[in-house]
Amino acid sequence: MKILITSGGTSEKIDRVRSITNHSTGQLGKLIAETFLDRGHQVTLVTSPKALKPEPDARLKILTVENVADLLETLEPLVKEHDVLIHAMAVSDYSPSYMTGFSQLAQASKLEEFLTMKNQESKISSEEDFQVLFLKKTPKIISLVKTWNPKIRLVGFKLLVDVSKEELIQVARESLLKNQAEIIVANDLTTIDDQQHLAYLVDEKEENLAKTKQEIAQLLLERLSHSE
Amino acid sequence: MKILITSGGTSEKIDRVRSITNHSTGQLGKLIAETFLDRGHQVTLVTSPKALKPEPDARLKILTVENVADLLETLEPLVKEHDVLIHAMAVSDYSPSYMTGFSQLAQASKLEEFLTMKNQESKISSEEDFQVLFLKKTPKIISLVKTWNPKIRLVGFKLLVDVSKEELIQVARESLLKNQAEIIVANDLTTIDDQQHLAYLVDEKEENLAKTKQEIAQLLLERLSHSE
Repeated sequence: MKILITSGGTSEKIDRVRSITNHSTGQLGKLIAETFLDRGHQVTLVTSPKALKPEPDARLKILTVENVADLLETLEPLVKEHDVLIHAMAVSDYSPSYMTGFSQLAQASKLEEFLTMKNQESKISSEEDFQVLFLKKTPKIISLVKTWNPKIRLVGFKLLVDVSKEELIQVARESLLKNQAEIIVANDLTTIDDQQHLAYLVDEKEENLAKTKQEIAQLLLERLSHSE
Repeated sequence: MKILITSGGTSEKIDRVRSITNHSTGQLGKLIAETFLDRGHQVTLVTSPKALKPEPDARLKILTVENVADLLETLEPLVKEHDVLIHAMAVSDYSPSYMTGFSQLAQASKLEEFLTMKNQESKISSEEDFQVLFLKKTPKIISLVKTWNPKIRLVGFKLLVDVSKEELIQVARESLLKNQAEIIVANDLTTIDDQQHLAYLVDEKEENLAKTKQEIAQLLLERLSHSE
């Protein structure tokens, strides 16, 4: 199979020296890539510059992206020519649109006007005690995947923080339906550390628990191979 | 001499998955550390986890910090026991204090109330098209150095973006006086790339131009050794 994997995290620039980063080491994506390569599959890995990456391999192609706009542009043609997308990247929900001192906000007659403003300076100045940063929602890439290629098999990820198992599974199942995914890997930041990585592989009927990154990669390989 | 060097960039958390990062590879701090080590000095390097670091050395101690609060706590005792501080780290000017949807802002009667709010959630939700992030100024560490140790020799850095030489020098000289520094290294992001790193080493009387990271490190070594 031709497997497309995303990993790492995107970064959205505030100005030329600062950006908002979604943290992800890329370790899980690397492991998933290695697991599919070992089984003879062809892998394209789209990841961020600082994420962990597999060793070079004849069947592996690596592309790096910085931000959501890059990711969108890179992913669309690739989705069209792969059989499976495992979308493990931590993608920024919001991108900075305008930053200003609090006094400008306090003096404004209509707050809506800030939603269309853009900064002219390449480094935003830092005089006031408080600044306000406006952020705009980025396109939800996972929801576009099936419009690009209705036949691609889609595995999505859902990362929540400190929720119950029930909530985790429920949110995963909503995402499954909304994005027409085959599996959503649902995990909680509070049960991920150096030793373990709890995750539920959720589909319409069941949820399989994996306890480590290796198990997640292995279960994905099995599930995607069985129903080929 | 006992040389304290800061390098890399700080990151301020928005929530448990996102943060605002000041970009810096740490390459210049690494080079400065190596240059002083080669001349037999003792070096303490305070840097960020992902910054480039020198190879281990018996006379080198490396400490890592994430954010401005860490940096403040780590630096104060170190400043008291070193002869020189070369403060090359890209330190966040602002730290996130509260993030909310635009609708909450639009409905508020007094905008000032947002300045003291804190988020309760560990991952801020992402329903609205626009979010607003409030940021609070961080303590200016360079201005505290001489209060911790009036005898320490201080080298500060000033990074601007796309300004004239005159403005760069003027801003550097203001910083020199305000922070009681011995030298301010003034540089402009638009004249830094893989090949070159233009920087003016500014003191009360003169400004020396360095054209590469190696020259900056070498000039710092010379200037700090001569007037010992």
